[in-house]
Amino acid sequence: MGCHLAIVGVTGAVGQELLSILEQRCFPFESLKLLASSNSVGKQIAFMGRVYTVEELCEESFSGVDIAMFSAGGARSRAFAPAAVSAGAVVVDNSSVYRMEPTVPLIVPEINAHQIGEHKGIIANPSCSTIVGIVPVWPLHQVNPVIRVVVSAYQPVSGSGMSAMYELENQSHQLINGKEPTCRVFPHQIAFNCFNHNSPLDADGYNLEELKMVRETRKILDRMDLSVTATCVRIPVLRAHCESINLEFINPIKVEDVRGILAAAPGVTVLDDRKNNRFPMPINATGQDDVLVGRIRRDDSLPDNRGINLWVAGDQLRKGSALNAIQIAERLLKST
Amino acid sequence: MGCHLAIVGVTGAVGQELLSILEQRCFPFESLKLLASSNSVGKQIAFMGRVYTVEELCEESFSGVDIAMFSAGGARSRAFAPAAVSAGAVVVDNSSVYRMEPTVPLIVPEINAHQIGEHKGIIANPSCSTIVGIVPVWPLHQVNPVIRVVVSAYQPVSGSGMSAMYELENQSHQLINGKEPTCRVFPHQIAFNCFNHNSPLDADGYNLEELKMVRETRKILDRMDLSVTATCVRIPVLRAHCESINLEFINPIKVEDVRGILAAAPGVTVLDDRKNNRFPMPINATGQDDVLVGRIRRDDSLPDNRGINLWVAGDQLRKGSALNAIQIAERLLKST
Repeated sequence: MGCHLAIVGVTGAVGQELLSILEQRCFPFESLKLLASSNSVGKQIAFMGRVYTVEELCEESFSGVDIAMFSAGGARSRAFAPAAVSAGAVVVDNSSVYRMEPTVPLIVPEINAHQIGEHKGIIANPSCSTIVGIVPVWPLHQVNPVIRVVVSAYQPVSGSGMSAMYELENQSHQLINGKEPTCRVFPHQIAFNCFNHNSPLDADGYNLEELKMVRETRKILDRMDLSVTATCVRIPVLRAHCESINLEFINPIKVEDVRGILAAAPGVTVLDDRKNNRFPMPINATGQDDVLVGRIRRDDSLPDNRGINLWVAGDQLRKGSALNAIQIAERLLKST
Repeated sequence: MGCHLAIVGVTGAVGQELLSILEQRCFPFESLKLLASSNSVGKQIAFMGRVYTVEELCEESFSGVDIAMFSAGGARSRAFAPAAVSAGAVVVDNSSVYRMEPTVPLIVPEINAHQIGEHKGIIANPSCSTIVGIVPVWPLHQVNPVIRVVVSAYQPVSGSGMSAMYELENQSHQLINGKEPTCRVFPHQIAFNCFNHNSPLDADGYNLEELKMVRETRKILDRMDLSVTATCVRIPVLRAHCESINLEFINPIKVEDVRGILAAAPGVTVLDDRKNNRFPMPINATGQDDVLVGRIRRDDSLPDNRGINLWVAGDQLRKGSALNAIQIAERLLKST
């Protein structure tokens, strides 16, 4: 017996990825309801040999639904997740609105799947930057606690959705042909450029993406005092998220031990081929379930062999969003 | 009376920038010799109302030359700089081959112009990544010594010359049109991608660009024990170099003091407009003499207010190469 599943925001970039991963993993659903905002209602979506009609998202949408996966932005999660919970569904929410609420588990299944059962109706999926960074850091932290993280992120445009991917291609085409680039999704030209992540800044000058990385990492690792600082930058890449991660450990650690721990870690693929210059890149992380990790180096700027540099790349639409949400749903099914 | 000037490698990206800056700054040359490898010999270059014919670089090229600016790669500097010195010229070398030699001053005029007079015929221009990072770090370091630097670089393709800029445009065009990208200059696709800097790796996995940043920064600051670690990444940007710089100071430091020191520093423009989301970007650093600095933030992951994050962008063909070399030449003329 499978579950009654609803997907909210099915026409977006993450929604489309959810469908593709449900099929790839043979997710055991008995019924599937595709929900979206009014301008997509009535759209027909062919999926696994059937044609589904997109229905309008409303408070009554969730009758009989077991699991509702929300990927339609924070405002819709805030407006409709309570209705889904009232109707008896468990919400797996891709937006940021519930992530830091104390009663909402914030889950990366490789790390804290044991907290899934503590939910009160809503389980939050972390931000893509947090997931891509924390999946490889976690297994190291288990062996030798991390005491400080300095991370600089190289973020693709797909985090802002399909229209942002179109904008990058369109601007590239315009600039190659000597035309002025059209900026609609982003505040600045993204083609052949990079800029501060386009999320609001706080009073200290950190953008929201950076704050999410800091706060969510602390919550997932259950170390609210962990020292983390982040700089998040948009670069002209379509998909897959890279991070330059500098780690300070409490005890000495060897590069070969880091490599061994990561090679055995779930959700991680080591790609650290110095001889052939093969390291993680957005184009080889795209479409992969695992986070790729390479450029594993001792950081001599810290004493006693306590520093390590890593370079990671992960598909932020898969492990960074849709795959992680589906892994949560799979665990939910197992526990029922 | 002006000087007799020679430019070696005039047809390259830096060589062309040298010409344009010489004109902009009304550099006082009495004669100008344009030198290049044999396949550019005979080429006519119009410059400041005259037509110059490119001559072949050989050991005899430097008779009567006062200052020879080399931008033709390490092999040619190694082969011909000694001949220039023997002929009585002072060499300002843009390649990396002499930078770490103890008798060769490594100069960023804003920082250590006083060492220019110590030259034995050759003065080295630091690498672009080093210059762009060190110009804003220096004035802070003067007030409150920096004890550790963690830097992640976002490097444009122009560091690999004009052919790399063409490759990025060409690959972008190919990919937009659904074609396979052609890789000639870089080992991997650069359009809509990013990768480990394409310089050789050492036994510890650091690429040469990263090692240059570490070693040159220490030499210029005259602090051979300074703790620096770097990760250098190529991103699909044509020109101007960005760095995410995390600084640990010996004493507490305030964000407003950092901003004030940088606003008054030579070679630096503060662009840190949180309200309007205006921060340094490659497209606004391109063509600028100054290094742009923004996203000045307190780093709470260090205790006692001793941490600061910066985001910088600098035109690596100008301040990162040609402009810095011409500033050195200007100081040489003043001192004679």
